[in-house]
Order: sequence, then C-alpha cells, then structure tokens
Amino acid sequence: MISFESDYIAGAHPQILKRLAETNLETLSGYGTDSYCESAREKIRAACGCPQADVEFLVGGTQANSVIISTMLRDFEGVVAAKTGHVSIHEAGAIEFTGHKVLELPQKDGKIEPSVLKKFMEDFYADGNHEHMVFPGMVYISHPTEYGTLYTKKELTDIAAVCRSYQIPLFMDGARLGYGLMSRGTDLTLEEIAKLCDVFYIGGTKVGALCGEAVVFTKQNRPAHFMTSVKKRGALLAKGRLLGIQFDALFTDGLYFEISRHAIEAAERMKEIFKRAGLAFYLESPTNQQFIILENSRLELLQKDIAVSFWEKYDETHTVVRFATSWSTTDEQLDKLEAMLLPGSGAREA
Amino acid sequence: MISFESDYIAGAHPQILKRLAETNLETLSGYGTDSYCESAREKIRAACGCPQADVEFLVGGTQANSVIISTMLRDFEGVVAAKTGHVSIHEAGAIEFTGHKVLELPQKDGKIEPSVLKKFMEDFYADGNHEHMVFPGMVYISHPTEYGTLYTKKELTDIAAVCRSYQIPLFMDGARLGYGLMSRGTDLTLEEIAKLCDVFYIGGTKVGALCGEAVVFTKQNRPAHFMTSVKKRGALLAKGRLLGIQFDALFTDGLYFEISRHAIEAAERMKEIFKRAGLAFYLESPTNQQFIILENSRLELLQKDIAVSFWEKYDETHTVVRFATSWSTTDEQLDKLEAMLLPGSGAREA
Amino acid sequence: MISFESDYIAGAHPQILKRLAETNLETLSGYGTDSYCESAREKIRAACGCPQADVEFLVGGTQANSVIISTMLRDFEGVVAAKTGHVSIHEAGAIEFTGHKVLELPQKDGKIEPSVLKKFMEDFYADGNHEHMVFPGMVYISHPTEYGTLYTKKELTDIAAVCRSYQIPLFMDGARLGYGLMSRGTDLTLEEIAKLCDVFYIGGTKVGALCGEAVVFTKQNRPAHFMTSVKKRGALLAKGRLLGIQFDALFTDGLYFEISRHAIEAAERMKEIFKRAGLAFYLESPTNQQFIILENSRLELLQKDIAVSFWEKYDETHTVVRFATSWSTTDEQLDKLEAMLLPGSGAREA
Amino acid sequence: MISFESDYIAGAHPQILKRLAETNLETLSGYGTDSYCESAREKIRAACGCPQADVEFLVGGTQANSVIISTMLRDFEGVVAAKTGHVSIHEAGAIEFTGHKVLELPQKDGKIEPSVLKKFMEDFYADGNHEHMVFPGMVYISHPTEYGTLYTKKELTDIAAVCRSYQIPLFMDGARLGYGLMSRGTDLTLEEIAKLCDVFYIGGTKVGALCGEAVVFTKQNRPAHFMTSVKKRGALLAKGRLLGIQFDALFTDGLYFEISRHAIEAAERMKEIFKRAGLAFYLESPTNQQFIILENSRLELLQKDIAVSFWEKYDETHTVVRFATSWSTTDEQLDKLEAMLLPGSGAREA
Repeated sequence: MISFESDYIAGAHPQILKRLAETNLETLSGYGTDSYCESAREKIRAACGCPQADVEFLVGGTQANSVIISTMLRDFEGVVAAKTGHVSIHEAGAIEFTGHKVLELPQKDGKIEPSVLKKFMEDFYADGNHEHMVFPGMVYISHPTEYGTLYTKKELTDIAAVCRSYQIPLFMDGARLGYGLMSRGTDLTLEEIAKLCDVFYIGGTKVGALCGEAVVFTKQNRPAHFMTSVKKRGALLAKGRLLGIQFDALFTDGLYFEISRHAIEAAERMKEIFKRAGLAFYLESPTNQQFIILENSRLELLQKDIAVSFWEKYDETHTVVRFATSWSTTDEQLDKLEAMLLPGSGAREA
Repeated sequence: MISFESDYIAGAHPQILKRLAETNLETLSGYGTDSYCESAREKIRAACGCPQADVEFLVGGTQANSVIISTMLRDFEGVVAAKTGHVSIHEAGAIEFTGHKVLELPQKDGKIEPSVLKKFMEDFYADGNHEHMVFPGMVYISHPTEYGTLYTKKELTDIAAVCRSYQIPLFMDGARLGYGLMSRGTDLTLEEIAKLCDVFYIGGTKVGALCGEAVVFTKQNRPAHFMTSVKKRGALLAKGRLLGIQFDALFTDGLYFEISRHAIEAAERMKEIFKRAGLAFYLESPTNQQFIILENSRLELLQKDIAVSFWEKYDETHTVVRFATSWSTTDEQLDKLEAMLLPGSGAREA
Repeated sequence: MISFESDYIAGAHPQILKRLAETNLETLSGYGTDSYCESAREKIRAACGCPQADVEFLVGGTQANSVIISTMLRDFEGVVAAKTGHVSIHEAGAIEFTGHKVLELPQKDGKIEPSVLKKFMEDFYADGNHEHMVFPGMVYISHPTEYGTLYTKKELTDIAAVCRSYQIPLFMDGARLGYGLMSRGTDLTLEEIAKLCDVFYIGGTKVGALCGEAVVFTKQNRPAHFMTSVKKRGALLAKGRLLGIQFDALFTDGLYFEISRHAIEAAERMKEIFKRAGLAFYLESPTNQQFIILENSRLELLQKDIAVSFWEKYDETHTVVRFATSWSTTDEQLDKLEAMLLPGSGAREA
Repeated sequence: MISFESDYIAGAHPQILKRLAETNLETLSGYGTDSYCESAREKIRAACGCPQADVEFLVGGTQANSVIISTMLRDFEGVVAAKTGHVSIHEAGAIEFTGHKVLELPQKDGKIEPSVLKKFMEDFYADGNHEHMVFPGMVYISHPTEYGTLYTKKELTDIAAVCRSYQIPLFMDGARLGYGLMSRGTDLTLEEIAKLCDVFYIGGTKVGALCGEAVVFTKQNRPAHFMTSVKKRGALLAKGRLLGIQFDALFTDGLYFEISRHAIEAAERMKEIFKRAGLAFYLESPTNQQFIILENSRLELLQKDIAVSFWEKYDETHTVVRFATSWSTTDEQLDKLEAMLLPGSGAREA
C-alpha cells in the first residue's frame, strides 16, 4: 500500500526534528517572543526582500485564514473569495464564525479572474443601494489554489491593481506556497508576491513542518495588538518555539525551497506516469497536487493499493481524485505507482 | 409626483393608529407579556389553525431572520437559501454576524426548486469528507420571494418533505405573507403553511403596520428561553404593547387580509396598465411587487413623475425597477400612472 | 390598583400619537432617510449645542448599547462598566454576543468613581503582561444610573479626563437622560454632556415615546458605514419615520424636557410621601426612580394595591423595590399612594 | 542565569521527541483519525477509569477552554468562573469572542467555594426576573488553580452536586492537572475527577509536551459533530499525529505522572529553600507553582540572576512573583537557587 492521499501524511522533514531536539533544553520565553522566532522572522523578511515586513506564526491554515481575515476586515465588510476557495467551502464556516461573510465569486480552475473581480467591484458600487449589503473589504486568493493551479504574474498584478483602486487588502493563502514557487512554469517569485500582496502566509504544515504557518504583513499593516487578537481566538501557542524553530530551520540553507522542489519533481514524474497510462486529468496543475478523473469501478480497484483523496463527484460514473506529493515522496513509491498503472512498462513491480 | 417605491412608504393602516390611541393610557406590562400580545397570539393561532403554536413578536424582518436562524441552528450548521434570498444579499451579513454561513443555492424566479434542494442535500451527505464543511441545518425560503413570486402547494410540500427526511426545519420568511395569501392564483393557505413550515413569520411592517413581525413556531419548537435569546440580540422591545396592539388589530375582523387584498387588486390593475403600455415584465409576479425592464433613458424620464425602486442592472442600456402597491395605494395614484404611461387612453390626466 | 412598576407602562405621550396620525399618509423614504428624521437630527443637534454631531435613531436601549459598543470597540478591546451597569447584568449578555467583554468595576450607588477608574487604567498598563488581557477600550456609564443616581459635572469631567488621557471614548447610556437633566440638583446640562461624552443617547422609550433612542456622536466619530453595521445587527427599522417623527415631536417646543419635569415633580412628591410614611430609602435618588427597602410581609400586602418592581433581595426578610414615575403619572395616582401609605393623613382616599 | 519563569520554558520531555522521531516516516491520516490518537485515547480512558469517555485533542489551553465552553453552552447561557479564573482574566476575552459571558464569582485562593456557588445559583433562580440575565450554564474550575491551589475531594464533590442539581455541566481546566494529581496532600485521583466532572482536560503543554491538551468528555456528552465545531474555530490540526503521538507517549509507562512527580519534588525542595530564607508566601500552594511576596528592590536584584514571572502588584512596595518547576528543573538549578537565597548555607555556590 502506498499513499498519495495528501501532503501531510508524514511527520516533519528530518532537519526540523533535528533542530527541535538540539534546542530542546534551551530556556526560551513563550508566545513567540523567543530568539528562534526572531531569527525565523529575519530570515523570512530577507527571503521576501521585504525588510519592513511583520512576520507572525500561527499553527494551521484555517486558523491563519480566520485570524487574518477577521482582524483585517472592518465591521461592515466581508471577504471576496472564489466559490471553490478554502475559506468558502472547507473551513466549516470559520470565517462566518468571526461574524463576516465570504462573498463568493465564480472561478476558473480554482482562480479568481481579474476581470470578474473588477466587474464585481464596479457593480457593487454602481448600485446606489448597497448600504444593505456586505461591503467587499478584502480579496482572498490561494496560491497554489485548491486545484493546484497558479496565478501568473500578470494575473496577480491585475488583481492587486483592483484591490489598490478600491483600497482593500489582497490576501494570499499560501498553505502550499512552496510548491507554487518551485513550480517550473511560474513567473511569480516570493519577492513579487510580497510586493503585490498586503498579507500572505508561507505554509509550513503542508511543506514539511509538523505544523505552522508564517504570516507576512508586507505593508506595515499588522493589526494593532495582534498578539491579543490571536490570544482572543485561542490561537496563541504557549511554546512559540515550536513554530520559531521549525521556520528557522525551513529558512536556513533554502530547506523550504528544497522540500518544495523535491515534491514538484515527484509530481512531474507522476504526471508523466498518468499521461502514459492514459488517465484523464481534471485540469492542468503545475504543482504537487494532481487531479484525475477515474471511473468509479477503476477507482475502487486502485484504492486497494493506493491511497488517494476523494475530491468531488465528476458524474454518475466518474470521480475526481487527488494525488499529492510531498517532501516524503520517494522514488520507490513512484516506481510502485508506475508498476501498477503501467504493468508492462518495465517499471519495478511492487 | 406619485410613489410606488415600496410597500413601506406610508405610515400604518388607520385602524392600527386608532387602536394605539384607544389603548394608550392603559397600564400594561412590558416585553411582550401584556394582554394585547396574548390576544394577538390567540388570534394568530386561530388564523393558522395551529392551536399549539408559539407566537412571538419582533420588530423587523432582518431581525426576525437573524434571531430565528441563529437560535434554531446548531453550532456546526448553516442555513440553506436561494442565492437571491434576502438573508443572502440584502441583510448586510446579519446571519454571518451570528456566526453562521448562508449556503446559497441556485434559484429560479427567486425560488428554490425542490429538486435542486434534494440534490444539494444528497450530494452533501454523499461526500464522506463533509466534516470540514458547514452542515445544512435549516432551509430558508421567502413567500412571496424577493421577486414577488410564490411557491405552489406542491412545491412547498416537496421542500418540506426534503427537510423532514433530513430532520432540519423549514423556515418561511413571510415579510409580505399577506400578499402571498391574497394573490389570486395561490393554492397555499395560512393553515397549509403552518402545517408545512416549522417556523414562519407573518409580516407586519410591509403589510400595514408601523413595524412588527409575528413569528410562529408551529411544532412546539420554540427555542428554550427564547426571550433571553431575543434580549441578547438587542431585539426585545420594552413596550411590547406596540407590537401586540398592532397584531391584535391586524387579526381582528380580517384586517390583515383586507389590507393585503387591497394591495393585490391595485397590483392587478397596475399590471394591466403595464401590459397595455407594452412594458416588459422581468418576470411574472402574482403579488404586490412588479418588476419591469426599462430602457435607461426612459427610466430617467419616468422618475421625474414616479418614484420606483432600482432593482438591478439588466444590461448596459436597461434596468430592472420595482413598482410596489400597499394598503395606501389609491385609485387616484393608479389613474395618474395610467395617464402617464397611456397618455391617449382616456385615463384621467395627472 | 395603581402601578409605579416602571416608566414604560403606558403608551406614548399624546402629542407623539397626534404627530404620527397627522403624518401618516405622507410618502416618506425608509431607513432613517426621511425628512422627519432629518428635522429631528437638526433639533437634537441644536439642543445639544453640538452642530457637528451625527445623530442616529435606534429602537431600544439594549440595542443601542450593543450597536454602539460593538461598532466603536476595536477587536482587542472590551468596555469598562460598573458591576451594576445595565450592560453588565440586565442585557442577557448582549455585549458578549458581539464578541466583547464587559470589564466590571466596583461601583458606588450605581456610579463609577473617577478615582477607581483611574487606578484601574493605571494598573492595567502597569502590568507588563497585559497582552493576554482584554484592553479597556471604552467607558460605559449610565446617567441616571440603574439606581436613579446622577453624576456631578465634576465627576463626569474627571471620568472624561481619564478617557481622554488613554484615548478611549466615553459613552453615556441615557435611556432616562431626560430625568437626569430635569432633576433639581443636577449641574449637568445637555450641552455639557455633549461636550464631555464621545457618544451618548437620548432615551425615548422610557421618556414618553413608543420606542426609540437617539444616538449622538459628538466628535465626528460615527463609525464608517454605520447604517450597514446597524443593518447587520438586525437593528435598522424599515419605517424609520416611526423614530424620526417621535423625536421630532419630543424636541419640538421642549416636549422632552416637559415630560421629564413632570415625572421628576411626581417623584419629588412621592419621596415626600415615603419620608412621611417612614419608609427606608435604599439610597438617595434625585430622579424618577425611587428604591425602597420593605419588609417582605409588608411588600406582600402593598402589592395587592400597588404594582412595583422587585429590584433585589436586601436580606432574608427585606426586599428592595423600585417605584417609577413617568409622563403618565397623575395626581390621582399619587393621592391614592398617599392614602394607602398615610391613611390618617387627610389625603384623598382611594 | 537560571529560570523558574514558567513550566513551559523548555521543549518537550525527551521521550516525546524520541517517539516523534521514531514514527516520523509512518503514513498516517490527518485530523486526529490516526492510530496514535486512537491509542492515546484508549490509554487515557483506562487511566481515567472511564471506558465510555470521548477523548479529543486540542493544541492549547485557551483554545480548549473556548472550544469546550462555546460548544457546550446553550445560546442563553454563560459560564460561571472564579474572578481570578484563567477564562475570566488571562485569555484576552476568548470566551466572550464566542458570544458568551463569563459570570465571575468571588474566589478564595483561586478556588470557587461550594457554598458561594450554591448561593449564587439560588439567588439567580430566586429572582423572578432573570430572563434578562445570562443564565449560569456551566461551571468552570481549574485544578490546580491559577494560584497553584487544589480542590479537595469534598469540595469537588460539593461543587459537582450543585451542578447536578441545576443540570449544568462541571468543567475542569486541567492545564496543569498532572501537578495536582502528584501533589502530596491531594485526595483527588484521576478516576475521581472523571466521575465528578462532566468534561475536563489533561494538560500537555505545561506538563512536558510541545503542545496539546487531551479533552475528556466523561458522560457521553461530546457535542454533536465536534470535529466540525473544532474546525470552525480554526482549532483542528492537520497533522493530528503531533498530538496523538505525544499523548500516547505521555500515557505509556506512566510518563505523565513521572514528569509531574519530578516537578512536585522540585517544588517541595524549592519551598524548603524559601522557608529557610524567610521569604513570604503569598499563599500555600501544594503544586509546582509557588507565589512569593518580594520587596520591589529585592525583586530587582534577584532578577539579575533568576528569571521569575511577575504575578501581581501586592502593594506600593511589594510584588507577588511566581516560581514554577517542571520536568526540566534540575538539581543544579535548585542548588544555585539555594546558594543565592541562602549564601552561607553550604549549598553549592553558583
């Protein structure tokens, strides 16, 4: 049995565990005030080319989304997101729990199209009667998206321009940001992202850490008394070192990028296997998540040997499933996958 | 200048003001515990053919929606509504303010189609992974809808059946319920509605009262300590008599129905005028709100003499506007409308 | 049977009903945008000597408290109030419902003492570790308090000075403000209050209106898009005229003050009767609410003829009860009260 | 420099890190559904003598408090806690963020006295008018308390009896539960606690884990769809293994109790040192936190060599500070402390 179920099925990258062990006995202050948090912040600022950034660590993605959105929106505002956005569908209403609406836009391959956003904003303000409606107060995008797709530099620039013109922040959920940055075709760098986005986070949980997301406020726009707001949401970690040490390790000697590149290379090989096996791609994903349409009967068979994620019903007889690679994906696992899908191909049999 | 801008442009039906004046000096207890509230409750129970109903009075429609939905949903649930539902769009996020998501369904003429609801529920529970999603915990419909349309008895029965099979309540927003009940073509009575819905309200604000909505819990399902939950939401009126006396008057000698019938008759005449004038209906509404598509230039002209409501942009050169009738609509106003739209028709000129 | 149970046991002052009837057929726009709301705003600004004030109308006191506090506090802040404050005890948790804590201070006769407030603020900021605590972000006082007592000009000035020095707003709940202003001993005028407070409201419900509170933002500090925030809380009245017309009447020819003076005069006579009858005052109240300590057996007897409000248990054998006067209190009622409490005094027997 | 600042200044107990490393490459499902979570649950049920218990893992203490309280309270309820309770003061309003009030009771040494609770409940229901007040819907206690003190079996039994008689749950915050269980004088066992409390948690963060609290619902009373409610609050950890593996290690071969005993023994020795040095105890604490009153000048001096926590101002010239021991406190550290406080005592000099 091999698993491509998600990018969080294994523990942490060994280098992270090593650093946790090495620093274990050091006396460190709590709540993110320790020296490793400070060092990690410094390294992330450097990696982003954004010396004025405020960097804060949170435990998980939904938590980060909910904390960021609810502390940055004003009372009368909601957050604009793709209908398929993580905050729209897969967070059990975490944004609404904080009292704010998610304003859902149509999407294409998981992305908000700049022109659709622009029209939405124009229409909102065109209607004289919008005082009875939730004001669009922030734009949420994920990069990579929930479908593994990526914004181009042009698209992100256009979306940022709409946000600027209405003076609302652009927020990028980067739970899988590393895979976006290391994707072969991308023209978006971390520095570019830091320039275009008002706030974003660099995902750890799905990129080799045990847990943790590094939130980057790029425009000296961190909400006042942010620590108190984090505490108020039950999101402040007592042993903040757990996050600081991990991100310090991830941003030392390019570990974060190396982990991401490894997963991208594994995904590239996986795509090749899928193509040769004639599988149908649900869409073209340039990152570590691949979405395949399978006949239900074939899926049933496959799941005896390979763990994958159910993604969505395609039609009455087909299902979309997700295969994900990560830092822990091995050549052996891919060999086995190849052997299963292309039995006569000469790949090593499982 | 005449106005068909809404059904709340005038004060209250004179009979209501009369009763307020007559009872003004009576000493009455507060917070809905007075004898007029009790009498109104009794009359409403009788009108609904639902002797076991709990009847509570609230001040306005958005308040009623938010109180009912947030006290009846469980923590992990959201409310299902049409994408065009009042709670979805025109309440400034009042439902989300209480921590719950509005799960928006596609709509037809403002209505949820029973088959669409059924499929949505089936798909939700088919997906094994729905613990990360907001559970559909209640269905919200409005009758008449925001587009003046009405559910048939068959449709309401089918929607109720879906709710029953998933054991979630069906809630009808009846802000304009009177106009639905008095519409010529309807096959839905108040008794039928009380049988099929778990909770609904009988709108006063838009049907001749100064303010007030009568919430009817039909299945002995009023949330525990409802008065405290109402107070917690800032929705408890100290002089509850203001609501009790008005509803007592509305449900004495059929005043509520008479007011509604008057508006429906006015709307029927208005529709005739529109048809003869060749105006384009946005959709067929059998109630007191009529939606007309106008060329923008013609609209501009019209608005010099007639106040109407902007509804939505139709296309670059056309707009949908709403004309509403109410208890206070007079023959003279309709004569003027006719004269304006059909200048040579012999109608009395304005 | 006579009732001194509260100041909201009767309907509205007749002049208010008269104006509602006179304006009933006028076509007016909704949601507080009509000409009566505008006129009332202008008159209130003039009465407050505060031409730059923003005046908004809400339906009730708890609603006003919750809307004002939750739209003015920042995320990490709570509101400071006396332990006996209305927001602390008698609003069923309405402030907490909006996500904010009430920071309760010790009180004296229902009032916050300036020195106690000052020390509380100093101690909060002295403790280096207060990032885990709710920041005091606003001070709430009521005037008159829940015990009918009044702040002196000196006290209010001192409290305002503390607020200024910490740059947090001072908010006065004026649900019974009229009675405070017309109290004989007060040295606080409406103009003074408008100068010292950042926001306050002028209560209508308990001072002769059917419902309604006029919120006055004195420092050009009305929260952005306030109408939307009000809507979001289910607190926006469709027929805003109901509030506008009432406050327009109250602030025409000094009606608000006349109503209040009438109740104060009635309370003064009532106090005389109590003193002569040897009743024990719980505290000295200079306004329309009087708090008396009664033996439980005597209370039981009294309640056969006079309705009063249970206030609190005094000890095992005594109870504190409240007597309230209002615009509708008559000489006849006071005659009866006197006859009951001072049977041989020559007062007219009931 | 040595530190007794808190019990979370070091990393994790080495056995925990060892287990994280050993299991690191295992493929495990997410969100608490893995085999280690299951195994940890089983071991905790056994340790509690409560085979029917539902055990859920959360990341931190404030998070646990807020999730438990807000999912177990009903809409009209608040939670009763000591004025000094963690939820009352040191969680930045996390409970209020979920829409519920903390009803603060007077305390003694950090504890709620059963008689005070009983009287509070009786008084609440004695007052006929409590529909305008927050209902007491749960009792929160911490054990050890924020002052290191412990409930006796008699006290806990009496508090539980009050809760039972009003049918509200008793919730014990056990962020430091281990230290309570291993305290020499206690007559409360884990089994007893599981019997008397409706829900409690076994703290990991402050008892040797990197993070994590194990919530135990003892009466088959886990809220429906708890995982969804946890997700909604941003509190669901993707790599749930991080919590499962840690608690599995803590409840293997009595590690949790051994860690706690070690800290208690260190605290006992520390108390001896304090006594011999003539320091003033703020109160008698039988657990790992010791509260000492120091002259401010002496404190300043001391802090050059020893890190402690400011607790509260005692008076103008004295301060209460906290010394805490933990799994990582060593004999060497205590030797140094002794040498500093008792320079001529023959203890090893630092």
